[in-house]
Amino acid sequence: MARLPERVSVALPEWLTERLSSLPDALTEAQAVDLTLELARQNFEQDTGGPFAAVVLEKASGRLVSVGVNRAVPESCSSAHAEVTALSLAQQALGSFDLGGKGFPEHALVVSWRPCVMCFGALIWSGIRTLVTAGSGPELERLTGFDEGAMIDDWQGALRARGIEVKDAVALDRAIDVVRAFSESGRLVYNARRG
Amino acid sequence: MARLPERVSVALPEWLTERLSSLPDALTEAQAVDLTLELARQNFEQDTGGPFAAVVLEKASGRLVSVGVNRAVPESCSSAHAEVTALSLAQQALGSFDLGGKGFPEHALVVSWRPCVMCFGALIWSGIRTLVTAGSGPELERLTGFDEGAMIDDWQGALRARGIEVKDAVALDRAIDVVRAFSESGRLVYNARRG
Repeated sequence: MARLPERVSVALPEWLTERLSSLPDALTEAQAVDLTLELARQNFEQDTGGPFAAVVLEKASGRLVSVGVNRAVPESCSSAHAEVTALSLAQQALGSFDLGGKGFPEHALVVSWRPCVMCFGALIWSGIRTLVTAGSGPELERLTGFDEGAMIDDWQGALRARGIEVKDAVALDRAIDVVRAFSESGRLVYNARRG
Repeated sequence: MARLPERVSVALPEWLTERLSSLPDALTEAQAVDLTLELARQNFEQDTGGPFAAVVLEKASGRLVSVGVNRAVPESCSSAHAEVTALSLAQQALGSFDLGGKGFPEHALVVSWRPCVMCFGALIWSGIRTLVTAGSGPELERLTGFDEGAMIDDWQGALRARGIEVKDAVALDRAIDVVRAFSESGRLVYNARRG
C-alpha cells in the first residue's frame, strides 16, 4: 500500500553506458577535460539532458572512477546535474559517502562548466580534493538563460578554505563553444527560475 | 563489461517505508513541521542517517507528496540530504523535474532545519513555491560541528527573488532540541569538511 515514493533512481543514458567499456582505465587531467566537453555536447545532441558533463578521477593515478552527465529532465530529477550524478556514482561504486575518507586515494572532479550553487555545495560534501572546470564565467547565463543560483563571490576561496584545490576555466573557449552550440540548437533551458 | 557505475539509487530506510501507508493523505503546515521533527529524530535514533527530514506538500490542499530523510552515510551518497531526497522522490512520483511546471498545483517544502548551501540550490531548481523551516540559525553548526557551506547572507532574499516564499524557524526550540539530542548521542558528524 505504499502510496508515497520510496526510492530515487538516476541512470546514465544508453549511449553513454554503451560507451563506458571503451573508455580508458586512466586519464590525464587534460584528457578528462576533453572527455567532459565531448560528453556535454553529445548529451544535448542526443536529447538525453543538458549540456553538462563531469568525471571523477583518482588524482595521482588518473584512474577513471565515474562519468556523469546532466539527467534532470529525462530522469525527472532536478538535482541530477552532471556533478551530482558523477559524484554519487563514484561514491556508490566505492561504497562510501566520502571520497576523501580514510583508505581512499585523493579524488578530483573535472567538469565541463563551473558548478551552480547546488553543485558547489555538493562537491564540498563529496570529499573530492581537486576541482577542474573547463569553462567558467558569465557566458553560460548570457548565452543560455540558465540561472546558476545565488553564490558567494569568492566561491573558489571557499573551496580552497575547505582543502579543495581549484583549477578554473582551463579550456574556456572550447567550453563556451559547447554552451553556444546548445543555445543555438534551441533546446529547452530547464530550471531557469528567475526573479 | 561495465566497469563504471551506471545508476544511482537512494531509498528511504525500512522503518520509514513501513510508516508511509499510515501517514495521512494531507497535512496542515504545522502538522508537516511536526512530522519533519519526528522523522529527523527517529532517523538518527534508528542509525539510518543524519538528524534531518523534509516533506513535500501541495500548498493549497496539503496533500502529502513525499517524505525524505538524510541518507548520506547509509546510502553512500553525500548528496542524499533530506531535502534532495524528498524533492527527488516527489519529482519522480509526479514524473517531472519541475514541481512548479504547468499542470501542477503549487508545492511547498517543509524541512526540520534550514537548507545547507547545496540544498539551497536544489530547492531553487526544484520548482517548489514555499519553503518552511522548523529550525534555522547558528545552533546547528555550534552544537554539532556540521558545516552548512558558504552561503550568501541573504539566502532568504535570493529565494524570494525567485518566487519562493520563505517561512523561517517556525518551531525553533523544538528543532534545536532535535539537533541537541543528536549531538548528545555522540553519533557521527559526517561531511564536516572545514578549513
